[in-house]
Amino acid sequence: MPERQFVKYTFLKVDPAWRRLDAEERAIHKREFLAACEDFSSERLLRAFSLVGTRGDADLLLLTQATNLERIHEFHVVLSQSGLMGWAETPYSFLAMTKPSEYSDESRLEVRPQHSKYLFVYPFVKTREWYGVDPKERWRIMQEHIRVGKEYPDVDLNTSYSFGLDDQEFVVAFEGDEPAVFLDLVQRLRTTESSLFTKRDTPTFTCIAMSVERALNALDGATVGVTA
Amino acid sequence: MPERQFVKYTFLKVDPAWRRLDAEERAIHKREFLAACEDFSSERLLRAFSLVGTRGDADLLLLTQATNLERIHEFHVVLSQSGLMGWAETPYSFLAMTKPSEYSDESRLEVRPQHSKYLFVYPFVKTREWYGVDPKERWRIMQEHIRVGKEYPDVDLNTSYSFGLDDQEFVVAFEGDEPAVFLDLVQRLRTTESSLFTKRDTPTFTCIAMSVERALNALDGATVGVTA
Amino acid sequence: MPERQFVKYTFLKVDPAWRRLDAEERAIHKREFLAACEDFSSERLLRAFSLVGTRGDADLLLLTQATNLERIHEFHVVLSQSGLMGWAETPYSFLAMTKPSEYSDESRLEVRPQHSKYLFVYPFVKTREWYGVDPKERWRIMQEHIRVGKEYPDVDLNTSYSFGLDDQEFVVAFEGDEPAVFLDLVQRLRTTESSLFTKRDTPTFTCIAMSVERALNALDGATVGVTA
Amino acid sequence: MPERQFVKYTFLKVDPAWRRLDAEERAIHKREFLAACEDFSSERLLRAFSLVGTRGDADLLLLTQATNLERIHEFHVVLSQSGLMGWAETPYSFLAMTKPSEYSDESRLEVRPQHSKYLFVYPFVKTREWYGVDPKERWRIMQEHIRVGKEYPDVDLNTSYSFGLDDQEFVVAFEGDEPAVFLDLVQRLRTTESSLFTKRDTPTFTCIAMSVERALNALDGATVGVTA
Amino acid sequence: MPERQFVKYTFLKVDPAWRRLDAEERAIHKREFLAACEDFSSERLLRAFSLVGTRGDADLLLLTQATNLERIHEFHVVLSQSGLMGWAETPYSFLAMTKPSEYSDESRLEVRPQHSKYLFVYPFVKTREWYGVDPKERWRIMQEHIRVGKEYPDVDLNTSYSFGLDDQEFVVAFEGDEPAVFLDLVQRLRTTESSLFTKRDTPTFTCIAMSVERALNALDGATVGVTA
Repeated sequence: MPERQFVKYTFLKVDPAWRRLDAEERAIHKREFLAACEDFSSERLLRAFSLVGTRGDADLLLLTQATNLERIHEFHVVLSQSGLMGWAETPYSFLAMTKPSEYSDESRLEVRPQHSKYLFVYPFVKTREWYGVDPKERWRIMQEHIRVGKEYPDVDLNTSYSFGLDDQEFVVAFEGDEPAVFLDLVQRLRTTESSLFTKRDTPTFTCIAMSVERALNALDGATVGVTA
Repeated sequence: MPERQFVKYTFLKVDPAWRRLDAEERAIHKREFLAACEDFSSERLLRAFSLVGTRGDADLLLLTQATNLERIHEFHVVLSQSGLMGWAETPYSFLAMTKPSEYSDESRLEVRPQHSKYLFVYPFVKTREWYGVDPKERWRIMQEHIRVGKEYPDVDLNTSYSFGLDDQEFVVAFEGDEPAVFLDLVQRLRTTESSLFTKRDTPTFTCIAMSVERALNALDGATVGVTA
Repeated sequence: MPERQFVKYTFLKVDPAWRRLDAEERAIHKREFLAACEDFSSERLLRAFSLVGTRGDADLLLLTQATNLERIHEFHVVLSQSGLMGWAETPYSFLAMTKPSEYSDESRLEVRPQHSKYLFVYPFVKTREWYGVDPKERWRIMQEHIRVGKEYPDVDLNTSYSFGLDDQEFVVAFEGDEPAVFLDLVQRLRTTESSLFTKRDTPTFTCIAMSVERALNALDGATVGVTA
Repeated sequence: MPERQFVKYTFLKVDPAWRRLDAEERAIHKREFLAACEDFSSERLLRAFSLVGTRGDADLLLLTQATNLERIHEFHVVLSQSGLMGWAETPYSFLAMTKPSEYSDESRLEVRPQHSKYLFVYPFVKTREWYGVDPKERWRIMQEHIRVGKEYPDVDLNTSYSFGLDDQEFVVAFEGDEPAVFLDLVQRLRTTESSLFTKRDTPTFTCIAMSVERALNALDGATVGVTA
Repeated sequence: MPERQFVKYTFLKVDPAWRRLDAEERAIHKREFLAACEDFSSERLLRAFSLVGTRGDADLLLLTQATNLERIHEFHVVLSQSGLMGWAETPYSFLAMTKPSEYSDESRLEVRPQHSKYLFVYPFVKTREWYGVDPKERWRIMQEHIRVGKEYPDVDLNTSYSFGLDDQEFVVAFEGDEPAVFLDLVQRLRTTESSLFTKRDTPTFTCIAMSVERALNALDGATVGVTA
């Protein structure tokens, strides 16, 4: 039986002053960062995404997953030893776990993006009124929500749970190759009944899937000079 | 048939310390920034606006448009290589797409400011109650809104859509040569029924249209020394 | 017929590190700033106020006025060339225009403080419910508000309008020589009906009127050495 | 007849980098700060409190009082000349005035802490609904509030008024030697009717009374070497 | 009879620039910090937790407890003398006291984590409506809440009280070895009646229990070289 996983979204923002360093120093900083990621990803899921051009407050997202929270902790300790983390802040950080859904048989115990081009991520909090609604009524409302989602089969959903672990209740991560299709789905979902029970669904991040190396190169436009 | 476009509003704020650098270094930084913009604008829409004197938290707006999100990403990577971006933050960033309007036949699949003097930009979120209103009723309410807008023919509107891509639902960009006329229109719209369904329409930016070169010169009052 | 004016409130906060510079350098920075202000004020309204001791997040307010927004922009470009602006942020910035009032014949098309000792400034946003109230009812409610204000004849009001231009709807600026009297007026106005339609009226700034030179000297306690 | 007083709460936060300076430089910075305080306190009320260990966003509170706002302004100008203010921010600042209470005969026209060990300070804003309640009803509700307070005679209250002068309506400052007793009083007050009309009562500061010199020494654990 | 205790949660965030210092300097900074902690913990409760990998805005939590607030103050003064505090901010800080519960006989006058692997901490504010509910009704609602909690016997609760001392009403700290179990408990509690009276329960911190030395080593991945 598959185990529940810890899922960590770490959004990084590099200090503009880092770009003033000479190219070789920046290359060393990126190589050290890359090495930490490669070490973790040799055994566990690690995915990188660039936010350069889609957000102003974050440059890079690392998505990591492990059955053990200590392993997530250790990865971030090792990452902090890279030169790049001497110049980076973590403006957003979401800790969550996978869990079977109450409303769908198709839920997964792993967040495993299927190599779509984009990941659309947001922390999600429902109104407290939602939790006071009769369970059968909640079920009915969620089935409508799920039915609309199925009209957009190219958009895939990874939900993880943060109750008590972090500031949000859920971390919602949609995957897809067509931002326009995802935009239309989200606008369509606004008119479903479930939408009325949304307390917070921002910030919303459009994340461009790429290798860690490419995401690092996008920080300063310079190649690390290492084959990923 | 025209394609839907990605529209990106990138607001930049230059560190006050940048103004302490010597003039020649600042000129190099601006020339590199200008070159990145000229490269992009040779094929796609790029417009520059100054916020010096109208806002305290942003100095310059770049509006870019492309049918491909990767092209927007690449532009921001190249831009980050300019010396100026070693001293600039991006305090606001709006990612959106064009889309035909449900309520008007005149909507456009391009955001293409008509060379008015000013662009008035704000991110827009409607209340969730709005989306629960009967579609016919929503249509009626929006027609009143559009009718009032038409009483101000010198103000032109470019709406783009951000559902699921960014923190707002819409990015609204009005153009006009007369801020007083636009102010009167917005005050008049407060008394329409649609106004009651506004959840958020700030921050609101008054942006002064100008060439990239002039907007760069406005950062420190020094000319780049390159003909735009 | 008088023209409508652009009114700009620019609040500046000097980096504490600026005070560590040697006295001569600070004096040059202040002289350059003063020169930019004198140039503008030779033709148009420019007033300076100190917030040292009344606020923690701003040190100095410049109030400028012009019939042309480009002139306001140019002033801030020239100001940015002064050494002081290499060490200053603009934590608050309000752009507005004058406009005849719907509710009073005494409204002015100029903001022209009458050399009172203090200016009390805040951005003002009304609830959307206000704009749905019947116009006759709004008139009645505003007349009560105005009537209370007239019981405090030593307090003078300058309202300007920001709909669509900036984050607030109005910039409200009261003048007076007696903060205690103004405080009593504002507390008294809380019990009027109009008060129920206030959405936001903060931050609220108590600004001490003085010459630009004195306001600059208040930043570090050192005199510029130039007669204003 | 006693005059109304201006009351100023200035909360300071020292840059961590200040602690890296050598001990002698820090001692000079503190002596200059102390001298400015001693000058003011020779004629007017000035009290110091440490927040080291009770808050993370402020280190020191200066409470000053004067019948003249210019005197408060001048004090902060002189204070800014001390070396310490080249390394300090003012994260919170409350400007207020004393005023006779509508609800109690015991109100004072001076804020004059009685040398209790602690001062508990918060800015206070009531809901607008409160001001629409019938005055007799408001009186009744406030008498219940006052009656509960009198059950805790060791806790003393200093209220000052900020309507129109600053972001809050009141600055509330309780004094006492026993935080546990004050905590119990505040929890008890939650069940009074007046509590329902609270819009904002945070941030809440627990301030430890001490001499300016001791509060300065608490910033870096080093003694100024001057007898206070 | 046991005394009520002061409980202090101090969350620290180290400046990324600290990691650029040479290893020996960092080791000295950490040793000084460790010495301050060891001095305090020789007589009183001090527990350390790492947030590396679970949060982006804090790296380390120190939980201290004393019957005397001056002792908490002094500890933070001594701590500030360590080199590490020249590079650290305190982004979150919660001051509280222990107190017998109105609703449970099992409440404790000490916060004394039982060496579980994790501490889940959040500041808690109830709606003002809660305090207007009839006491018997409040009792009934809380008993349901407590009954659900008892279904998860491996999760232990330490509540402390901040009324009037800090921005929250309670600091809630759950302990457990299994984040998944705690997550399930919190999600389950959403459907209890008491959940409807929650005004604020964020930020929520997942804190990994470890020795001070290990928590310091996690900041830069380097060992202090001192046996804890």
